[in-house]
Amino acid sequence: MESDLINWLRRTLPSGEAVRVGLGDDAAVVKLAALEVVVTTDMLMDGVDFVLGEVEARRVGHKILAVNLSDMAAMAAQPIAAFVSLALPRTGGLELAQELYRGMWPLAERHGVVIAGGDTNSWAGRLVANVTLLGSPSPRGSLLRSGARAGDKIIVTGSFGGSILGHHLDFEPRVVDARRLHERYELHAGMDVSDGLALDLWRLCQASRCGAVVRTEAIPLAAAATEYARRRSDGSSPLDHALSDGEDFELLLAVPPVAAERMLREQPLADVRLTEIGEFVAQPGLWQVDPSGNRVPMAVSGFEHQLD
Amino acid sequence: MESDLINWLRRTLPSGEAVRVGLGDDAAVVKLAALEVVVTTDMLMDGVDFVLGEVEARRVGHKILAVNLSDMAAMAAQPIAAFVSLALPRTGGLELAQELYRGMWPLAERHGVVIAGGDTNSWAGRLVANVTLLGSPSPRGSLLRSGARAGDKIIVTGSFGGSILGHHLDFEPRVVDARRLHERYELHAGMDVSDGLALDLWRLCQASRCGAVVRTEAIPLAAAATEYARRRSDGSSPLDHALSDGEDFELLLAVPPVAAERMLREQPLADVRLTEIGEFVAQPGLWQVDPSGNRVPMAVSGFEHQLD
Repeated sequence: MESDLINWLRRTLPSGEAVRVGLGDDAAVVKLAALEVVVTTDMLMDGVDFVLGEVEARRVGHKILAVNLSDMAAMAAQPIAAFVSLALPRTGGLELAQELYRGMWPLAERHGVVIAGGDTNSWAGRLVANVTLLGSPSPRGSLLRSGARAGDKIIVTGSFGGSILGHHLDFEPRVVDARRLHERYELHAGMDVSDGLALDLWRLCQASRCGAVVRTEAIPLAAAATEYARRRSDGSSPLDHALSDGEDFELLLAVPPVAAERMLREQPLADVRLTEIGEFVAQPGLWQVDPSGNRVPMAVSGFEHQLD
Repeated sequence: MESDLINWLRRTLPSGEAVRVGLGDDAAVVKLAALEVVVTTDMLMDGVDFVLGEVEARRVGHKILAVNLSDMAAMAAQPIAAFVSLALPRTGGLELAQELYRGMWPLAERHGVVIAGGDTNSWAGRLVANVTLLGSPSPRGSLLRSGARAGDKIIVTGSFGGSILGHHLDFEPRVVDARRLHERYELHAGMDVSDGLALDLWRLCQASRCGAVVRTEAIPLAAAATEYARRRSDGSSPLDHALSDGEDFELLLAVPPVAAERMLREQPLADVRLTEIGEFVAQPGLWQVDPSGNRVPMAVSGFEHQLD
């Protein structure tokens, strides 16, 4: 029964001082440190974002919270409280829900997030999970997509491609990294790469009304990109996967040249390298440089939900 | 495509001054008037909470926002911003999404709510919609479930039962009514009736660590309760439906006697009557009075999602 799960959650969920009213009332009341709140929400579906039965439910639980944390990282915000809605299959739904929460907790704890409410349902369909995450904006202001300027360097964390081999489930969102970079360096714009490096860079350019020239040879390739290209044996290269595969959940930043130079020299992040992969330009569009040194258009490839 | 819908939303969605950063970035930034935010979230599924194909998508759109507004009413809070996540069927998903939004807008506008973000997906399953709603707490404090005391009167808005015949789709959430009552009268506790009057009253008692004696003859029966009992012809009475059917979305309040007397005399709500249906008592449990005047247990009936 739904009430069994809610009672289990009330006994089990860690509480936090940010939550004035939590589980068990009609709504939650969350305390904030500022008169602005950053809000993100992501819905994940069995068969699209993960396949239950092929992966442990705890890893799915980790992912449904992690994708939202990655959006907080993209804003350089500090996450506070999460709200979890579940449409559970009727059979085995209670245990599934508990495993999902067990997958969320360690991640929530590492990032200081309280699970403050939600909605639990059962139905004849496959699992659908929605998380809404509230956070505090950075004191330096939120990191938006719209501030990139011609001349800014394109800087990324980590490496790209082949996320489907496991990274898309187990990644650690770059929340702390984003806040550290935003505090120490001048950043003009930023986002997380969730739908593919090329598509997301193009989106950042659209939001900033500029273009970007990518030095494709500088893009850090994940080992999984090479492995995935080998397994697919469809002629796609590791670079193709680095540019088009979704769910890398790395940071993509627009950094003015002086700050970029210092950031690359200092490499201030504990576990991950920062790499410059090109620069923003006034000419709209996504570009690369061919062997003769000419600017040529680059494919805007990546993942979009199909609707008709 | 997902981007077609997002572009349509950016062109079409009314903006509001509460939203500093809205659609099109990684997260939204919402301005608040206080250092506390009320948050509720509800997930609705095709085949459980409505049946697409039997009802117009606009009515479904109305409902997915209205159920969340009803939770805001339950807290006597002022709604501010909504976040809408959709898992859409692949075929016809774009038009369906547009109709859902068209169903939400008039309601959002009436209640001063801005649709500030969301997440749009497609999949092979049926429609799942999740709305998270943010609101400002009442200056008099949030109306909780936990404040009822022995001697308080049980007061309800409107009438009960047979919601399945249409009210569950088309109801107007009692946001303004709740705030008016909370401003003018001393209320000890309150909630909205979403899962059945008996079950929700029992939940309010549990949260307040008290019991309740219901005068069942005083419960206002909706015309639909009588109609539904007639159609079912399974021996259930209109009162049974008033007690057990879910989705009345009326207010259930614990009001100290002096305030209750004044409230009932003044009938301060524009379109709906307030009715006293019993009182809270120290003895835990749900009770009614039999013809000889004895307290006898009352069935805690209502709707719960089944999980095993």
